[in-house]
Amino acid sequence: MRIITLLTDFGVESTYPAQMKGVILERCPTAVLVDMSHGVPRHDVRTAAFMLASAAPVFPAGAIHVAVVDPQVGSQRRVLAAEAGGHLYLAPDNGLLTLVAQGQFLFGAGAAPARVISVENRTFFRIDVSSTFHGRDIFAPVAAALASGTPIDALGRTVESIERFDLPLPDRSGNVIRGAVLYVDPFGNLVTNVSGRALAAAEPCAIQVRIAGAVVRGLSRAYSDVPAGVLLAYIGSAGLLEVAVNRHSAAVRLGAGIGMPLSVDLP
Amino acid sequence: MRIITLLTDFGVESTYPAQMKGVILERCPTAVLVDMSHGVPRHDVRTAAFMLASAAPVFPAGAIHVAVVDPQVGSQRRVLAAEAGGHLYLAPDNGLLTLVAQGQFLFGAGAAPARVISVENRTFFRIDVSSTFHGRDIFAPVAAALASGTPIDALGRTVESIERFDLPLPDRSGNVIRGAVLYVDPFGNLVTNVSGRALAAAEPCAIQVRIAGAVVRGLSRAYSDVPAGVLLAYIGSAGLLEVAVNRHSAAVRLGAGIGMPLSVDLP
Amino acid sequence: MRIITLLTDFGVESTYPAQMKGVILERCPTAVLVDMSHGVPRHDVRTAAFMLASAAPVFPAGAIHVAVVDPQVGSQRRVLAAEAGGHLYLAPDNGLLTLVAQGQFLFGAGAAPARVISVENRTFFRIDVSSTFHGRDIFAPVAAALASGTPIDALGRTVESIERFDLPLPDRSGNVIRGAVLYVDPFGNLVTNVSGRALAAAEPCAIQVRIAGAVVRGLSRAYSDVPAGVLLAYIGSAGLLEVAVNRHSAAVRLGAGIGMPLSVDLP
Repeated sequence: MRIITLLTDFGVESTYPAQMKGVILERCPTAVLVDMSHGVPRHDVRTAAFMLASAAPVFPAGAIHVAVVDPQVGSQRRVLAAEAGGHLYLAPDNGLLTLVAQGQFLFGAGAAPARVISVENRTFFRIDVSSTFHGRDIFAPVAAALASGTPIDALGRTVESIERFDLPLPDRSGNVIRGAVLYVDPFGNLVTNVSGRALAAAEPCAIQVRIAGAVVRGLSRAYSDVPAGVLLAYIGSAGLLEVAVNRHSAAVRLGAGIGMPLSVDLP
Repeated sequence: MRIITLLTDFGVESTYPAQMKGVILERCPTAVLVDMSHGVPRHDVRTAAFMLASAAPVFPAGAIHVAVVDPQVGSQRRVLAAEAGGHLYLAPDNGLLTLVAQGQFLFGAGAAPARVISVENRTFFRIDVSSTFHGRDIFAPVAAALASGTPIDALGRTVESIERFDLPLPDRSGNVIRGAVLYVDPFGNLVTNVSGRALAAAEPCAIQVRIAGAVVRGLSRAYSDVPAGVLLAYIGSAGLLEVAVNRHSAAVRLGAGIGMPLSVDLP
Repeated sequence: MRIITLLTDFGVESTYPAQMKGVILERCPTAVLVDMSHGVPRHDVRTAAFMLASAAPVFPAGAIHVAVVDPQVGSQRRVLAAEAGGHLYLAPDNGLLTLVAQGQFLFGAGAAPARVISVENRTFFRIDVSSTFHGRDIFAPVAAALASGTPIDALGRTVESIERFDLPLPDRSGNVIRGAVLYVDPFGNLVTNVSGRALAAAEPCAIQVRIAGAVVRGLSRAYSDVPAGVLLAYIGSAGLLEVAVNRHSAAVRLGAGIGMPLSVDLP
């Protein structure tokens, strides 16, 4: 019994996620299917990269994580299978694995990919591969093959480098850490690439976070530490510094999106 | 094999429901996971209370129902485990169990909670409990423990009273029953706290429902008993009196929401 | 172990899909439940008909597909059980099975229904059948009965004809095929009833598609064959001709919906 998670931008209004499941269950009836989410904003590879890298390590080792956010479907972009931290990943080679590959820096619990394979062995594909729905015709049957015990090496050849989007790692200079927003969650909370571990030695009350002209003084423990409508900073559930507004959207309040810079003043 | 249902306001756009499942499956791989819904309007404890109390009894006895709508996450509010009508419930102590506790009045099939426990035994929590995601770090592993056979008593100590929101039970005076809207479903149908049993002795055609200045004469059996756009009253699938507009939203038509009063004239 | 898929217009914001699952799991604990989608536009039987007929054949033979888009719930419309192409279908008799019944023309892989039964044996229903939620009280327990091995004949009597909505099959005259839009997917892609097989003999570059005053010259293989914002035609994942706009909505661009005519000029 193997867990297969599915992360796509297909939307729950379509039958596309279900069609992937139909293909998987035909080939591996005992697979345990979990929807990671089908609500990735369409074609938003950077958001998907964060969702994948932050959620996958919560699953038991051995899980197979399939991520299909694929604006270039049907083109010559490769399909990648990667092994990292005891988990397997399937994704198009379009940057989606960027944060899985950097997971050890961001999440602590992560690990650098031990192997990355370019999936080319068509034995594992559906017989008729459409040009627009590789999720069903390539990703799903390959995931079922992995869940059935096919070794990752059987899928294709090892690759040395993969597509990554530009992601400057946070930079510390004296008592100032400069970072950036990595993800905006559906509530408008801003998840940054500044690790909670980088702040662990400092007195929480004395930390200051500067973003979009606003200054947040001190780290909170919970949303309810501040009144509704007030900005707060805290270490979020992914172990990263987050900026939020209690019961409102920090993204709306600050006009913030992925890539917005911030700085943290340590005492 | 135990069923665990999940009801949250996390939204299907996030990976938060999936992260709860990852934690549960690590600790109880044979759990059968069912999404009750992740579309509770954010922080809307009263809507969640109705969704939980009306849907849970439909599941087989022994099911474990986890509900996380939790504006005070990270504060000192308690986590409750309750046993009622052969089902187990896990929820924050913020009113979410109000209607489960009153289920015997509303739904007939319900039963008063036999036991309520304050969940305090950290043995069953994840090692690192974040301050913002108790769904993953407390509720999920505790649900997995229950599904694995841990008795509810092992979780903490019995409590005598729980948080409840103000919910006047319907009041009958002569031939008039006064009640209130309990829930607005996603179609805009208004579910009230007037039980179908209270109306069972009356001639359906002679019943009149008054709400927001409108009068509905007679109970219908089905939406299609009236033309599109017309207001109707009927006993809904939860066994409660409902007011709807065929193929439109009664909530929009009447400007109605939770708590709006209504009266029923019996013949 | 049998697969049961669920297709409804209940929305993931409600607990109605979960209540159907509760009933199924009580009666058939080993059923494998897959959400086909709960995001059918409300009461849109034609959209549901396409979603069902295109997605169901992807599942393994023996799967049971339950579709509940049912504006006449509570009226005297029949409930149908159909066997087609090795799959079982449960749906209201309101046109929802139109494309399943025509599947052999559209999808190639489909097959005409071998049998259609009017489901009338109340032994398999829940004891109390509400007038507004047949999904839970009729469809779910009947699906569980089928999954538990009940033969389809036990459900009721064979019927000779079913409700169908008007769907002219595509018409070829000389080098011109006239067809219509069958489905608008959540991305605004237009799926037509012109089969890819009908175009297979023609040179892809020389095919012209005319729709809503626009002309698309040549068939593409993938969205990314054209720049963002440009109209393209291609054979989609259901094996049918589709018209789309790369990274935008063709439905919005062309003001197109179900039933819009189009023509294809073959070389």
